[in-house]
Amino acid sequence: MIEAGKFWVPGPTEVRPELLDTMRRPMIFHRTPEMEALMERVTRRLRAMFGAKRAVHVISASGTAAMEMAIRNGSIRNVLSIIHGNFGERFAKMAEASGRTVVRLKSALGDAVPLEDVRKALKGGGFDAVTATHNETATGVLAPISALGKLVSEEDDCLLLVDAVSSAGGTPIATDAWCADAVVSASQKAMGLPPGLAFAAVSDRLVERAAKVSGRGHYLDLLQFEEFAAKHQSPTTPAVSLLYALDQQLEDIETETLDRRYARHRAMADACVTRIRRMESVGLGVSLTAKAGLLSPTVSCVSVANNKPVLEGMLKRGYTLGGGQSELAKTSFRIGHMGDHTVAGLNAMLDVLEEVLESVGTGKGERGRV
Amino acid sequence: MIEAGKFWVPGPTEVRPELLDTMRRPMIFHRTPEMEALMERVTRRLRAMFGAKRAVHVISASGTAAMEMAIRNGSIRNVLSIIHGNFGERFAKMAEASGRTVVRLKSALGDAVPLEDVRKALKGGGFDAVTATHNETATGVLAPISALGKLVSEEDDCLLLVDAVSSAGGTPIATDAWCADAVVSASQKAMGLPPGLAFAAVSDRLVERAAKVSGRGHYLDLLQFEEFAAKHQSPTTPAVSLLYALDQQLEDIETETLDRRYARHRAMADACVTRIRRMESVGLGVSLTAKAGLLSPTVSCVSVANNKPVLEGMLKRGYTLGGGQSELAKTSFRIGHMGDHTVAGLNAMLDVLEEVLESVGTGKGERGRV
Repeated sequence: MIEAGKFWVPGPTEVRPELLDTMRRPMIFHRTPEMEALMERVTRRLRAMFGAKRAVHVISASGTAAMEMAIRNGSIRNVLSIIHGNFGERFAKMAEASGRTVVRLKSALGDAVPLEDVRKALKGGGFDAVTATHNETATGVLAPISALGKLVSEEDDCLLLVDAVSSAGGTPIATDAWCADAVVSASQKAMGLPPGLAFAAVSDRLVERAAKVSGRGHYLDLLQFEEFAAKHQSPTTPAVSLLYALDQQLEDIETETLDRRYARHRAMADACVTRIRRMESVGLGVSLTAKAGLLSPTVSCVSVANNKPVLEGMLKRGYTLGGGQSELAKTSFRIGHMGDHTVAGLNAMLDVLEEVLESVGTGKGERGRV
Repeated sequence: MIEAGKFWVPGPTEVRPELLDTMRRPMIFHRTPEMEALMERVTRRLRAMFGAKRAVHVISASGTAAMEMAIRNGSIRNVLSIIHGNFGERFAKMAEASGRTVVRLKSALGDAVPLEDVRKALKGGGFDAVTATHNETATGVLAPISALGKLVSEEDDCLLLVDAVSSAGGTPIATDAWCADAVVSASQKAMGLPPGLAFAAVSDRLVERAAKVSGRGHYLDLLQFEEFAAKHQSPTTPAVSLLYALDQQLEDIETETLDRRYARHRAMADACVTRIRRMESVGLGVSLTAKAGLLSPTVSCVSVANNKPVLEGMLKRGYTLGGGQSELAKTSFRIGHMGDHTVAGLNAMLDVLEEVLESVGTGKGERGRV
């Protein structure tokens, strides 16, 4: 664990030096029993993390590629995109860039789209796929996927494609139980690894669908991943060094246990939320962007009049936070309490944040005090 | 340089420990002046390596993705694929998987498609793109791209897309002078880096073409790379650790100088060719797959009756060579003399290879001796 982390971006997250060290191992060839054994271990542990009975695919690319893999293989014509912020919008744009027609359901800022709205949109919409964001990194909203999955599964031949880029590894994922057809993620968020690897848990239905979709392309062709996964291989040369780190981290996570890992993330989120609310109550001009019932266990988005002096003030003290995105670009900052960060490290950072907020005066009063 | 390399696969190649060490550096956020400075340095040096006046794009993915980027952005309907082996065929398949109609021109084994055949195929073919392999890793053939580029550039609105995955960094690349519209490569071959990064030098014509092609997708959308390259950024979270290694290696290559690097590769190829021919002449049952005038500077493909005892014999002595591909799967092995390997290291490996060939008797006589 990282006891005194200073890098609190919601991805890439800080990586333990022990994990970085694994990348010093010499290259191995990817069509060997050694690599197949690594891939078997990695896939077995990813299945537990993703709550998936099928193999979880490992893609040498960033999480965006795994989202595109879901879209390209899992949708045909009409897509319903549930959008809670920047990354939900990215999923929709990606579907359009692949030639699909997209209907957007957008939530209010910091909120999630009500299930009732989804139900209405689905009726008679003729959608063959629904895209959804489990954890919206832009606003710090964790959406309820289980109920959504039930709703979508009642539709005829409509698949559910879930972006879990900033949640997997930090909060329970239940691909099969959610009736999700794709749950995709990436290495550099709650999994606590360097960027460069993406993951995709997929359903039988998605594989069957893929066989019917033309123009799937090559690099993100699910059927190729399926073919190679059967022999614990990847279709193309994988990012070997990053696989070393993944292999080690999944072993370490198994040792920590998923339950304890999720509890640690929840404890970090609770500590962060409590503290931000206290800062708000004393007039430091901050507030949580996400609604109370939807607060993410991995990332907190904090609304503020102007994020520039806050981010710069933190940087001056050695701390990196995330900036804002989209309409919140200048009026929010984000704290990624994910990966191998700890409550102790978070509290130390929040002490400094409070100091910075006091000094820059971001509150309603000129000096930030009421 | 690696003075006593034992890993001679034609990708991934052996990586210097100093480069692996750079990957221990802590994460940085990718929207920062620090990362922009890194990307500016990297791009500047890649332009020199690729002989390109425009920015060379860095993709966090394997080389296959860069090939697909060229196809998806650079072709519309009809593609002519020049094929010298497995990787030329992959380029063609990729175009088909993207919905293009492909005409194949296949060379004889170890040979290159004669320019005259290309000229004939182009006439009246209505192709909007030609795919070609600069260095066919499956057969060890280096194809003449310069003359091909001239030929294709005489066609109306037909782009030339070149796979230089196993040549860039080991032999001169001249994107602009070749009149090539895309020259793509990857990190784990002659550039001497771990796998996980791909590169694409592109022409103005390709960028203009991309704007007219629909269904380009998102992750490999050239126009996004162009937009972000203008501010020295990547469209999505890049593989930060691999960029550290790339940054260091490009600096080291600048110190070595490209000329000396290419001369070292040519010297390794010459040493390998001379030695294989000598082994052939004493009846050790080996011969070069590639024709004399087409021998690759980075990889030698060696035909043999049965590669299994050779590969196993080498492995027993600590050396890893590459196996065969496609129709040569069992009847060839491949030596990747690329990246940071040296003539001294190669000669030491070839001594062991000769010993192995003598002991396993791969020649026409039962004991491998005539």
